[in-house]
Amino acid sequence: MQEQLPKFAIVLSGCGVFDGSEIHESVCAMLAVEQSGCQYQCFAPNTWQARTIDHFTGQATAIAGDEDNRNVLAESARIARGNIKDLSEFKAKDFDAIILPGGFGAALNLSDFGIKGAECDANTEVKRALEEAYSEGLVIGAMCIAPVVLAKVLGKNNIHITIGNDKNLAVGLKKMGAVAEERDATGVCVDIEHKIVTTPCYMLATSLPQIYEGARNLVDKMLELIDY
Amino acid sequence: MQEQLPKFAIVLSGCGVFDGSEIHESVCAMLAVEQSGCQYQCFAPNTWQARTIDHFTGQATAIAGDEDNRNVLAESARIARGNIKDLSEFKAKDFDAIILPGGFGAALNLSDFGIKGAECDANTEVKRALEEAYSEGLVIGAMCIAPVVLAKVLGKNNIHITIGNDKNLAVGLKKMGAVAEERDATGVCVDIEHKIVTTPCYMLATSLPQIYEGARNLVDKMLELIDY
Repeated sequence: MQEQLPKFAIVLSGCGVFDGSEIHESVCAMLAVEQSGCQYQCFAPNTWQARTIDHFTGQATAIAGDEDNRNVLAESARIARGNIKDLSEFKAKDFDAIILPGGFGAALNLSDFGIKGAECDANTEVKRALEEAYSEGLVIGAMCIAPVVLAKVLGKNNIHITIGNDKNLAVGLKKMGAVAEERDATGVCVDIEHKIVTTPCYMLATSLPQIYEGARNLVDKMLELIDY
Repeated sequence: MQEQLPKFAIVLSGCGVFDGSEIHESVCAMLAVEQSGCQYQCFAPNTWQARTIDHFTGQATAIAGDEDNRNVLAESARIARGNIKDLSEFKAKDFDAIILPGGFGAALNLSDFGIKGAECDANTEVKRALEEAYSEGLVIGAMCIAPVVLAKVLGKNNIHITIGNDKNLAVGLKKMGAVAEERDATGVCVDIEHKIVTTPCYMLATSLPQIYEGARNLVDKMLELIDY
């Protein structure tokens, strides 16, 4: 009988590093999962972006409440080629693992860490999905700045994560209960007890091949923690 | 003395398969170039999209002339993390090669092949950039549907290209002077005489690893045609 290969959920936060999911990290995560012979399903919260940034000029073109602000699910769908579900449909029992790629969207749309720091909240559906994933024993992965969302939702369990080597950020993470460990660009922090795997990506990386390598390392370590 | 490694220009057409550059193809092209030890610079025409599509619903939210339509350069900048130039600044003599990833943006924004077929026009700056690249002897690469742009601008030279195995599209390409050769998802069509390399990607591919493999194959063949 053929062994059932692990299924990954990938939670996006928009489309573009400055107001959504970092595109290179998202695509490399998807690629790494498929190259491991596993499958993924993309999800995103059906909510408005905190802001919309013109990625050429770097200027904000809309903020929450503006008519021309963008929707997180609709923008995330660009990275997923339309094959994406509302995060409210996520059921942890259907998956073995869940990955949050980075980009400011993690700190603006999945949580508001980018505005409030350690006093932040997580999006309701993100909180529900991560709590359900944790209690069901899924392996949880996060890249770049996205570990701050894990710190907010799961920090009370004293999880170990990496966001590279940023000491200011590490202080904020500690306030939420998480322990920040330093890693280099393609290094991986593996918290075996809580089945949480994190990697710094563009917190430190300076090239796309480093992102690819980090994503491969992340998925490899996540697979080691999945019982299958 | 250290040998100078080839420099690639990558021409984007927006951000998202249904109204811009196909994101997976774009990222895999960038990754393949860097993994070969080469550098790239992204470009896009500073013009309005033919249309803007909600990638979750598949519905058009704006067409050319609408106030909430999107700009090709600003949207392309999302894939390039802001590191992108207006295509009007492209000078062929600064590069050894140029790549056009696919996505409907190639047939809607770089050209209007998606609307007019063989009677299409190319965007003025795209036409100028490709003609200059061709006359300066750059190696020209295109993925997925983007070879139709090469057919429009350079078809009069009887170039050989692939768009997979679509026989209707092949008829349109022939009207523009190009010869369409069939290739499988990760195969590459190499026109040595005109230094043009093309690969079908999502015209036929069914997975992201195939896109990565196709991009690697494309860049490998392009490097063989570059004298360096």
